[in-house]
Amino acid sequence: MNAEIITIGDELLIGQTIDTNSVYLAKKLEEIGIRVSRKTAISDSKSDILEMLHSAQNRVNLVIITGGLGPTKDDITKKTLVEYFNCGWRTDQSVLMHLAKIFATRGRELLETNKIQAELPDICVTLHNEVGTAPGMLFNENKKIVISLPGVPNEVHYLTEFEVLPKLQQFFNLPKVEHRTLVTLMVPESLLSKQLEAFESSLPEDLSLAYLPSYNCVKLRLSCKVLQKSENYLNDYFQKLQKAADPYVFCIGDETPANFIGNYLIKNNLSIATAESCTGGFIVNQLVQVPGISEILPGSILSYSNSIKHEELHVPQETIHTYGAVSEEVAVAMVDGVCAKFGVNIGIATTGIAGPTGGSPEKPVGLIFIAVKFNEKILVKKFKLHGSRLQFMERANNCAMAMVKEILEIKE
Amino acid sequence: MNAEIITIGDELLIGQTIDTNSVYLAKKLEEIGIRVSRKTAISDSKSDILEMLHSAQNRVNLVIITGGLGPTKDDITKKTLVEYFNCGWRTDQSVLMHLAKIFATRGRELLETNKIQAELPDICVTLHNEVGTAPGMLFNENKKIVISLPGVPNEVHYLTEFEVLPKLQQFFNLPKVEHRTLVTLMVPESLLSKQLEAFESSLPEDLSLAYLPSYNCVKLRLSCKVLQKSENYLNDYFQKLQKAADPYVFCIGDETPANFIGNYLIKNNLSIATAESCTGGFIVNQLVQVPGISEILPGSILSYSNSIKHEELHVPQETIHTYGAVSEEVAVAMVDGVCAKFGVNIGIATTGIAGPTGGSPEKPVGLIFIAVKFNEKILVKKFKLHGSRLQFMERANNCAMAMVKEILEIKE
Repeated sequence: MNAEIITIGDELLIGQTIDTNSVYLAKKLEEIGIRVSRKTAISDSKSDILEMLHSAQNRVNLVIITGGLGPTKDDITKKTLVEYFNCGWRTDQSVLMHLAKIFATRGRELLETNKIQAELPDICVTLHNEVGTAPGMLFNENKKIVISLPGVPNEVHYLTEFEVLPKLQQFFNLPKVEHRTLVTLMVPESLLSKQLEAFESSLPEDLSLAYLPSYNCVKLRLSCKVLQKSENYLNDYFQKLQKAADPYVFCIGDETPANFIGNYLIKNNLSIATAESCTGGFIVNQLVQVPGISEILPGSILSYSNSIKHEELHVPQETIHTYGAVSEEVAVAMVDGVCAKFGVNIGIATTGIAGPTGGSPEKPVGLIFIAVKFNEKILVKKFKLHGSRLQFMERANNCAMAMVKEILEIKE
Repeated sequence: MNAEIITIGDELLIGQTIDTNSVYLAKKLEEIGIRVSRKTAISDSKSDILEMLHSAQNRVNLVIITGGLGPTKDDITKKTLVEYFNCGWRTDQSVLMHLAKIFATRGRELLETNKIQAELPDICVTLHNEVGTAPGMLFNENKKIVISLPGVPNEVHYLTEFEVLPKLQQFFNLPKVEHRTLVTLMVPESLLSKQLEAFESSLPEDLSLAYLPSYNCVKLRLSCKVLQKSENYLNDYFQKLQKAADPYVFCIGDETPANFIGNYLIKNNLSIATAESCTGGFIVNQLVQVPGISEILPGSILSYSNSIKHEELHVPQETIHTYGAVSEEVAVAMVDGVCAKFGVNIGIATTGIAGPTGGSPEKPVGLIFIAVKFNEKILVKKFKLHGSRLQFMERANNCAMAMVKEILEIKE
């Protein structure tokens, strides 16, 4: 079964806001067997919303709209839905009570503007929004569903999990689409595709392989569109894929490299710390997104300046003087220093030039030395990374995770 | 003039990839006076691509497609464009030469798969992609333009800046849309909208105000749709907006709070360091996205464990014991410690519970103490933040930036 998502808001079209709601929604719908076949972003314009609702409802039986439910003048979704469904208005007492409660908790006065949130189209089912002020709405007309959600991400998450998915599961009864994903690191897409040529040719029609590239990282996703076969059917082909992609596989599953490493370290009770110069805490901040990491990550040092490299990490001033701050020798001294300081099993150190300024012909922007230490073993590598300041940090992080996997000899 | 963006790729629909390309493109097009009126994400399906091209070309004179130009089997955009325009193929020698060069530089063999990138529809103008292997393509049929770009973000950036924008500026001749943006922090959208009621009512028809909310932060964007008036016309109303929103204005312009603070510190040669516990380096990593920050940010400490709070930041063990690690007293000791350690003008310290675990009735998930020190002055505040682990860090970062502005008494 297919669905379409319509996101409403000028801010999505003018390039001021990145739409993460539809990404989240698509993933969650996929999990219950609903495929998003199209996503459309339109402006806060009545005629555009009406036209999109008409055309989307012609194509699919489920349309989800996000945005335009705020209390301000440019939020017109609710009014437009009343016009589209040609219905009236009602005041939802449960929403009113929820608003009173939420404003009391926050110690703020409940304004007339806020009370408007309780005025709803009279034919809709209210979707209770525990974490915000704008309720979701569900319209069921001739077995075709339209759902309207607010645009604030954590409210979309709450409503999806506790209202939308359970109600859709009840309403539709569908076969599940199954996926298996693995992550490759440090291999270009074209080389990977050559490596997988024979495997791809051997795929039966009901299986498909997708390449999902990002920085230094290509995810491979094998999908079974109709799971009429046994679960082993997809698993068997996924094992063939793992074998075919073997030298490049970083981990199995759909997770970030930092997430994989973080969880591995927690599970194996291995402690870690970073000493970052050019990556400015990016690597440790990827690791700390993993819940529970504080148990094995006591701390980290960001050391931009040479004096902090010396004072905090005990990098000898002579080493910095002889080889320069951006050098293999300094990276090694930094990783030694951070492991000794925090008494951790694993250390990661980075020194390089993130740009856009600070490069020279000898040491250009994008140059980075990464050192990883595990007990007494040290691995140090030089990379030349391209892209913006943030992309440089993302690539460096993936390089570091690949090195941690290498030094720990993790078999996947 | 209006344009539509079509993004192609199953990964955008299945929720595995966040689309930043269309956000970037919309912003850049807006700057040269082209308004994106619709964005549509569709799958790697020939029929969907053909249908969207037809319908988009019926609505607007400029259609930009991203994605589906990779060297692998699931990339079908180029073939579909040949079918759509009913044209033939040509080999582009300049692309072949570029491919040879790029593979030589990377020390990799040029495979037949890669050479396919030089096979182009014979009626298209080649858009040279210096930073990648897939060229962009421009089709001009009866004064209607279709542009096809790859899906890799830094390639989209390069092609847009050096090929797409100059060619579009040459082709179309359009009035500019002007925007003025300001950033408010720590005020809910509904309260802000009440505050701005009189201002909004006073706006003439050719000006519009949009609210762009994110975590603890609402951007206000005033737009002049047709700049027939003098530049002062928009500026005058923008000044009225600043006055109306006055108590809540964080900064003028469209930038992140961390970017504003980072640039302010660089400009005023004020040094800064952070001592972060629950925010895990998130705050310093927002600051280090500002080029040149390493001049005034010597280093930072991430101190999850109590022993590192004590050893590195000299937080007395008694303070931790008496008040708990998550307390006002520890936040103050941490900020004292980090300022002393690095000899900086400004310190930021955080201690709290990011969740999802680790909370208690007394100290629930979301509780955070933030201390900011400037020379001898210390400001410390307690917040209860909601949302996921990452949202908690984003909100905490905005709180910290507001506190830095407050303690420095920056007037905007």
